[in-house]
Amino acid sequence: MRKPNRPGAAASIRHTSPMADTPTGHRRRAHTRTRDIERYAGLFAERTGVMRSSAMRDLMAITARPEVISLAGGLPDTSTFPPQTFAAQMTRIAQTSAAEALQYGPTEGFEETVDCILQVMGAEGMLPDPEDVIVTTGGQQAIDLVTKTLIDPGDVVVCEAPTYPGAVPVFCSYQAEVVQIECDEDGMRIDLLDETLAGLDSEGRRPKFVYSVPSFQNPAGVSMSIERRTRLVELARRREMLVVEDNPYGLLRFGGEPLPPLYQLDGGDFVIYVGTFSKILSPGIRLGWAVAPPPVMEKIVLGKQASDLCTSTLTQYFVREYFAEGNWRQYVESLCAIYRKRRDTMVEALAEHFPPEATWTDPEGGLFIWATLPDYIDTGDLLARALRDDVAFVPGQAAYVDGRGASSMRLNFSGVDEEEIREGVRRIGNVIREQVDLYATLTGEAVGASPGTPGREAEDVPAVDARSDSSASISDSPGTNPNDPSQGDVLPFRKAQ
Amino acid sequence: MRKPNRPGAAASIRHTSPMADTPTGHRRRAHTRTRDIERYAGLFAERTGVMRSSAMRDLMAITARPEVISLAGGLPDTSTFPPQTFAAQMTRIAQTSAAEALQYGPTEGFEETVDCILQVMGAEGMLPDPEDVIVTTGGQQAIDLVTKTLIDPGDVVVCEAPTYPGAVPVFCSYQAEVVQIECDEDGMRIDLLDETLAGLDSEGRRPKFVYSVPSFQNPAGVSMSIERRTRLVELARRREMLVVEDNPYGLLRFGGEPLPPLYQLDGGDFVIYVGTFSKILSPGIRLGWAVAPPPVMEKIVLGKQASDLCTSTLTQYFVREYFAEGNWRQYVESLCAIYRKRRDTMVEALAEHFPPEATWTDPEGGLFIWATLPDYIDTGDLLARALRDDVAFVPGQAAYVDGRGASSMRLNFSGVDEEEIREGVRRIGNVIREQVDLYATLTGEAVGASPGTPGREAEDVPAVDARSDSSASISDSPGTNPNDPSQGDVLPFRKAQ
Repeated sequence: MRKPNRPGAAASIRHTSPMADTPTGHRRRAHTRTRDIERYAGLFAERTGVMRSSAMRDLMAITARPEVISLAGGLPDTSTFPPQTFAAQMTRIAQTSAAEALQYGPTEGFEETVDCILQVMGAEGMLPDPEDVIVTTGGQQAIDLVTKTLIDPGDVVVCEAPTYPGAVPVFCSYQAEVVQIECDEDGMRIDLLDETLAGLDSEGRRPKFVYSVPSFQNPAGVSMSIERRTRLVELARRREMLVVEDNPYGLLRFGGEPLPPLYQLDGGDFVIYVGTFSKILSPGIRLGWAVAPPPVMEKIVLGKQASDLCTSTLTQYFVREYFAEGNWRQYVESLCAIYRKRRDTMVEALAEHFPPEATWTDPEGGLFIWATLPDYIDTGDLLARALRDDVAFVPGQAAYVDGRGASSMRLNFSGVDEEEIREGVRRIGNVIREQVDLYATLTGEAVGASPGTPGREAEDVPAVDARSDSSASISDSPGTNPNDPSQGDVLPFRKAQ
Repeated sequence: MRKPNRPGAAASIRHTSPMADTPTGHRRRAHTRTRDIERYAGLFAERTGVMRSSAMRDLMAITARPEVISLAGGLPDTSTFPPQTFAAQMTRIAQTSAAEALQYGPTEGFEETVDCILQVMGAEGMLPDPEDVIVTTGGQQAIDLVTKTLIDPGDVVVCEAPTYPGAVPVFCSYQAEVVQIECDEDGMRIDLLDETLAGLDSEGRRPKFVYSVPSFQNPAGVSMSIERRTRLVELARRREMLVVEDNPYGLLRFGGEPLPPLYQLDGGDFVIYVGTFSKILSPGIRLGWAVAPPPVMEKIVLGKQASDLCTSTLTQYFVREYFAEGNWRQYVESLCAIYRKRRDTMVEALAEHFPPEATWTDPEGGLFIWATLPDYIDTGDLLARALRDDVAFVPGQAAYVDGRGASSMRLNFSGVDEEEIREGVRRIGNVIREQVDLYATLTGEAVGASPGTPGREAEDVPAVDARSDSSASISDSPGTNPNDPSQGDVLPFRKAQ
């Protein structure tokens, strides 16, 4: 069995806690007292008042203990990358271009990196002008730079509900007003988007952009249907409104038919595209990109200059060498094969260990499953309890700006192996069962037999329905009524439109 | 002779020009027309109206042609790094921790990277608490994150005049009001800072921070005297005002006595420290850091999460392996030996080829010399003419926010070898002579015999005075009167205080 890597397994992780004692305590200056915190507080920019932490990032530190099974990360399994390929690439760089690899590079990135990006985008049918591409320090920086270019305090950004938990801190740091549009199994509900835009119109407001992860969405795992993609692109064109398409997972498809990216449908006039090598190669190289029309790109380049001058030359050379070998698509296929099995394992484990009231998505690709529990369960509280049993997930509230999502959770199936997935889901299931039983005791309500109790076997659970005409389906466990009004606060993954 | 590397010598550089024709012209969408530029313009954030380009970054693209001798960069000579060390480090990473090196890391950086940082800071007498350190994507990101944490639109940032040309775009991108305090050969004039702060007090304004490069300043090459360092730190403490100390070059000292960093004098209460591996190892790895008191660090970490999640794991592992070899200080010493010779060569060449009216600094370390020409010469115009002769420098205006510096230039001596330094300075000298002669013709004024004319040999020029009690001295060429009022617009590198 391959041991999947987690940061902190080999390298230690630091926790930044102002109050923490350190082994080298004599170095600690006495500047953490209340008086000192007040001293600096007066100097902070307004944006720091609304800046928030990314839940995944915090969890990353907490879950660094090797005994914790973390289903909280968004980690690809980098242990699948052959170390001998790594060594060979780096040796070639050392032999042919060590001095260049260690030097500054152009702000926009190297032409050779853009060539690799064009190959990746070409694999999904996109053919951008290379001049429209900028190489960024991960996809995260691309989101940051686009937001920096477009958002003034108070401007409206529209995104999905739930949305990528790492995007929320970006929008907040630019003091945007975030409006979230509900998703169902076909992605963002464009009918609700249309209504929302009309409502904003009546207030004289116009969103600067709509942010969407249309394929294998983070966190929900769902994909936007072709009909909605087409409608969204038409809407953007009609309203001269930008759409930021964040597509880290598009090539990680395990089933169903490929869907065209928004960028392809639009031709790049109103869709700004964000991509990354993180999920098809490595997140540790921090290489992503943005594609934008020239007037927007010009501003993004200025923003990049100020932010970090240029993207790492060394890691760009790494990608260049890797693509020169010509096997990158085979590697992505190997990842898909591994992740498909892990998804299957997770879906099976959910059916076995989660209570009948729970629902979850069954994604056809990507890294995540979104599970929703009875609304009397708060997944933030649940996490605290789960961590005591050495298992972690991302509480659903991290994917909302307004406190919704409290009964949902994001589960990652790419970063841990099948055995750990089964064990992790089993532990979470146990903690949920405690809550369900407690609720039954307190309210006297009868609840369905908890799963995992003796006599109830996994094979009793009906097979999950994988529909080929949609990128994700909802597997309702037996006994769940999707129209149960008690699930009102829960993400309504039901067919709409 | 070692061929120093320049970006673009081996790898090509892309120019982002919205109007550029591309070989793959069929891909180019017709979205660069005026109508389209207007279309997007309405969507831009206010900050884009004041965002400006970093002159060095623009020049980097222009000077990528291999035939251009660029004295414009701020490039360390990475060709001095042994390729076999590079290969050995990377092979070890591949063998022991490939999966971890390719994975996400903690936002604050790895503990092992911080250990390396503590060694670097320790070499200058600083002993920060490791908990106060965050690893950033180059020193540039550290400046950006500190500014993000502290600056609201309209807030005052005080910096040196001239200042690091790459800092100006950061302050502008956060819509700061930048106030510059003149330097002389002892660095920022603290008497003028005191006056300026008093003036701001009377307007009810208080700068959020003072940004300074106290050692071997970029662009002027001067260092702040110990007396001024002490006064600045006292001032900060008395006013409860932060100082951002940017110290990329502190260890690159070729002569004179080490000066204590502001951080060391202050103990880290009011001095936020910015460091980088760019100048002592490699800028292509994009690794820098910030050190700040816990309340400030907490906000910086949030900002980093939003900006790019974490710094490259791969390049952090590279640094870890490098420091494990234990030779990093010897490498820095070897850099100092090389750069000392190059500085000497440049100073000699300036004396030989620049006109008698010119002045320049003679730094005891770092990468840059700041030269000031007669005030009828605009170095922006001069650069356009110099590029035709395949030589480049940074026009002085890039180091000011208010249009000053038009007769000055920043010259880099670290990124090119001695032969190129001599030839580059000779070419610039020729272009200056044309301007001087033209001015004489137009005004009928007598000017001193132009240098470089037959019969005037380099050895006729008096040796430059390298004073050991100051970090930089001004070498006035013969015939220059430092009190000449015609030099009023020129950076007055004269002793004050």
